[in-house]
Amino acid sequence: MSQAASLFQKHEALLNDAVEAIQSRKFYTPYPEHPKAYGETGDEEGKTAFAKQMNEDFTELLQEGASGSVGDEVSPYLQLGLGVRYPSFTTTQLIEKAKGSSKVWAALSVQERAGILIESLEKVKSRFFEIAYATMHTTGQSFIMSFQASGPHANDRALEAITMGYMELTRFPQEVEWVKPMGKFDIKVDKNWKAIPKGISLVIGCSTFPTWNTVPGMYASLITGNPVIVKPHPKAILPIAIVIAELQKVLKEAGLPAEICQLAADASSAPITKELAEHPEVKLIDFTGSNVFGDYVESLPGKTVFTEKAGVNSCLIDSVKDITPVIQNISFAVSLYSGQMCTAPQNIFVSAEGVKTAEGHLSYEEVVKAISEGISGIAQHPKMGAGTLGGIQAEATYNRVQTAAGKGGKTLLASEKIANPEFENARVASPTLIELNADQKDIYQSECFGPIVYVIKTKNAEESLQLMKESAASKGAITCAAYTTDENLMGKIEDEMNSVFTPVSFNFTGAIFVNQHAAFSDFHVTGGNPAGNASFTNPDFINRRFVWVGNRWVN
Amino acid sequence: MSQAASLFQKHEALLNDAVEAIQSRKFYTPYPEHPKAYGETGDEEGKTAFAKQMNEDFTELLQEGASGSVGDEVSPYLQLGLGVRYPSFTTTQLIEKAKGSSKVWAALSVQERAGILIESLEKVKSRFFEIAYATMHTTGQSFIMSFQASGPHANDRALEAITMGYMELTRFPQEVEWVKPMGKFDIKVDKNWKAIPKGISLVIGCSTFPTWNTVPGMYASLITGNPVIVKPHPKAILPIAIVIAELQKVLKEAGLPAEICQLAADASSAPITKELAEHPEVKLIDFTGSNVFGDYVESLPGKTVFTEKAGVNSCLIDSVKDITPVIQNISFAVSLYSGQMCTAPQNIFVSAEGVKTAEGHLSYEEVVKAISEGISGIAQHPKMGAGTLGGIQAEATYNRVQTAAGKGGKTLLASEKIANPEFENARVASPTLIELNADQKDIYQSECFGPIVYVIKTKNAEESLQLMKESAASKGAITCAAYTTDENLMGKIEDEMNSVFTPVSFNFTGAIFVNQHAAFSDFHVTGGNPAGNASFTNPDFINRRFVWVGNRWVN
Repeated sequence: MSQAASLFQKHEALLNDAVEAIQSRKFYTPYPEHPKAYGETGDEEGKTAFAKQMNEDFTELLQEGASGSVGDEVSPYLQLGLGVRYPSFTTTQLIEKAKGSSKVWAALSVQERAGILIESLEKVKSRFFEIAYATMHTTGQSFIMSFQASGPHANDRALEAITMGYMELTRFPQEVEWVKPMGKFDIKVDKNWKAIPKGISLVIGCSTFPTWNTVPGMYASLITGNPVIVKPHPKAILPIAIVIAELQKVLKEAGLPAEICQLAADASSAPITKELAEHPEVKLIDFTGSNVFGDYVESLPGKTVFTEKAGVNSCLIDSVKDITPVIQNISFAVSLYSGQMCTAPQNIFVSAEGVKTAEGHLSYEEVVKAISEGISGIAQHPKMGAGTLGGIQAEATYNRVQTAAGKGGKTLLASEKIANPEFENARVASPTLIELNADQKDIYQSECFGPIVYVIKTKNAEESLQLMKESAASKGAITCAAYTTDENLMGKIEDEMNSVFTPVSFNFTGAIFVNQHAAFSDFHVTGGNPAGNASFTNPDFINRRFVWVGNRWVN
Repeated sequence: MSQAASLFQKHEALLNDAVEAIQSRKFYTPYPEHPKAYGETGDEEGKTAFAKQMNEDFTELLQEGASGSVGDEVSPYLQLGLGVRYPSFTTTQLIEKAKGSSKVWAALSVQERAGILIESLEKVKSRFFEIAYATMHTTGQSFIMSFQASGPHANDRALEAITMGYMELTRFPQEVEWVKPMGKFDIKVDKNWKAIPKGISLVIGCSTFPTWNTVPGMYASLITGNPVIVKPHPKAILPIAIVIAELQKVLKEAGLPAEICQLAADASSAPITKELAEHPEVKLIDFTGSNVFGDYVESLPGKTVFTEKAGVNSCLIDSVKDITPVIQNISFAVSLYSGQMCTAPQNIFVSAEGVKTAEGHLSYEEVVKAISEGISGIAQHPKMGAGTLGGIQAEATYNRVQTAAGKGGKTLLASEKIANPEFENARVASPTLIELNADQKDIYQSECFGPIVYVIKTKNAEESLQLMKESAASKGAITCAAYTTDENLMGKIEDEMNSVFTPVSFNFTGAIFVNQHAAFSDFHVTGGNPAGNASFTNPDFINRRFVWVGNRWVN
């Protein structure tokens, strides 16, 4: 039995559980999200390994023939360069290596590919802490978010993509004898069906979620037999470099070319993304990032493109049982990682009529005051503040926050520098909260990435809903939070927002937030509005990566 | 119980059989292809109904408010106008009616939609003979092909699309309680998932297969909840008009708007296709036809497009057990409906080395002579000839055949007028067979729609294969026929042609032809090469018509 086949045997039960999870969409994870599930010494070992890597070349990749090296990552916590250098390759090198490895990868059965890919996730698991520190010091996420998002949650999404691929590729029989009765005789035809991979896959990563947003496309392309080139954001390479290195080791141990999945690191000063994307041999492109670049990628002819771009996420407060947990929940949702999550709400719509509660009516002003206090309460909280906000990944984001107030509206909360007791140089900014009128669409109907929150005063809930719908349709939306105890309005919000392909989270309080999409259950991005054309992980995310071809024989 | 729900109950067993067929890909049809399965008097009644319709307005549609009437169909058998006039509507009328009917259709369950749609197929079944005569006198197909292609085979493909839609839309639970254990407590979230239709669907028909090529897109869009506007080819309206009329009657009986599926007939002199296709409310477009128009449709921004365009289909003869049934099979495949099937071979590659047979070696010249005799034998056969060739649908095709010889090569068979004993004015032309060298790519690597067949002399089978592959990759191919007894070569042909997303039919002899793709088993067009971007009926053909949206509630 081949190494790949025995890896499939090893992981078959896990894969079957994941199939069942995707079908049932109930809670499932083989990778618990709490760090303590990964051993007593893991944190210390991970921290040590990360520290050891700083100012050193990253030598774990099994790609040969580097034409140079690159690396300009900067820690948002330390405001220092990490000093890690990665081997770099020319586009021609990357394409030729991908082409060279494509046949052997495509020739494996989907079971063999699944075995190898799941094994790589198990290897990655042993490095969750190290990946967490790498994520923290590239993205600015807090340690716990770094751990969860780049570790277990990313592995969940990778496994989800592998599993959905396995489901799609085993959906039809590999071969069949087709017998057509013709009355006096039968026509017999032997048939087979093959899922032919489309070709070289380019996965373009982002700076804020370097593994979570990269592994779905990467593993989806791999399970469907395509060689993959991962082009990480130049400011967030290390986390995904570790993942790719682990995968390459598994590939090599199975006697396969490491270049089935390549890291294509580049420098901010000499980006290679467009050259790769436009290369005629690149047939599949996954992209996470800005609308401008996303629209460009989507416009490239002859490519199958999967994008997650930016949207303008909204929150509507109409009526609640108890305002306190609602304000807590919203305040946390907008503060978590300083609004640098693609799922974070930006616009909070409150009507001039105020908010009905079980305890009585709250005026518009009372609600806005509560939001303001809620947000500043988290930011200024000596224990929670810095940890919830994390660091600001990019200087451009930091600058955007500083200048947001100048665009108009009434500043309710000015952004302040928040001290992080652990990292004195950390780039931390509390959210700015700005009050706008419904007609100031030019301000709130565009994405302001980072800790910028708008409260928008509307006539009534109906107007709030129409404005949310309008901006989701025209600017895209990945999430929508709504608070109402009115069943009729609830149904209306659901129908209207769903009609612009936006999911709604109703009445979220407690330890669940609109920002969070759970693998195996929640589709992440619908693919139906301008926030992106793809979805983690619906069948389309898999099926568009290969072509069914059937052959027939008469004997 | 609603009418729609009771129709689902009525057809549930059939639907389950169809699900099983799609999964097993074994032979299946609820619509036998032989006319005798549909009653003794069906033919006579169908002929009478068709005759009665000639020179009369088509009044069966339930669409109201026509702005005029159109109709310029011409029978290729009679060379006379059919004189049938169809109500015509402005683009604005069509769009408004589609929009007006969209909510109620989307609000039905997939089961209810399936019940209604399958019921429409059962109604269509009662009119197979009439549709056959309508197809014959618009497309030029023989009666038997008209009956099979526009009747049972079209119904099979429609049912396949309905069934695949039902499978995809019932794949995930409608709702679930998601429970995440957090140690000391559980997080409980109620979730639902909805398949939100993308919007108005435009289905653009072709002149040669007015129902077979239209119903897959039409029923795929309908089952996924989208309203449909069918824009038939102005020269082939009647067959699909009957299908739509039957569907509209079922819709009306179920208390639904007939305009959920509209006929948008236009005149050759005043086409409305581009206006419809470019309308911003049109989100889905299915197209069958020329590469020029297909490329235009594919280039429209903001649309989800499914195309079947033209390809250059090849046949390779390397080695055979017995040459006689091979020549018979190929000759029939190129002659059937005068090469006007998108699946018909155009290029026959024979190497200078000739063909190995169990009885000994045949020289290149002997094989070419046999092909020539095989083709002319069918065309000139007093009983088979006219029936196999059918009529030439368009004058442009007839003219193309007449001038084909002038493009180069050695004419082995000149096209001749063939008498049809039943229709003295029938436009019938025997295939022209032209011999070319491998380097005359400018001639044979473009599609010559109609009864034009090239025999191409190559150095060896390897060169034949490379030329087939090259033209499939650059010009597209829907089918490929290969004759070889060499297992190694067989594997190589399969791999190479599959790598350009072209299916191969090996060693077809007897009563099965490369032209035929069976519903529930053979995917028609792979979608991977320039012959089209979609496939009847793979999961993509369904999934790209709707968007999964999930909502969440905390109570």
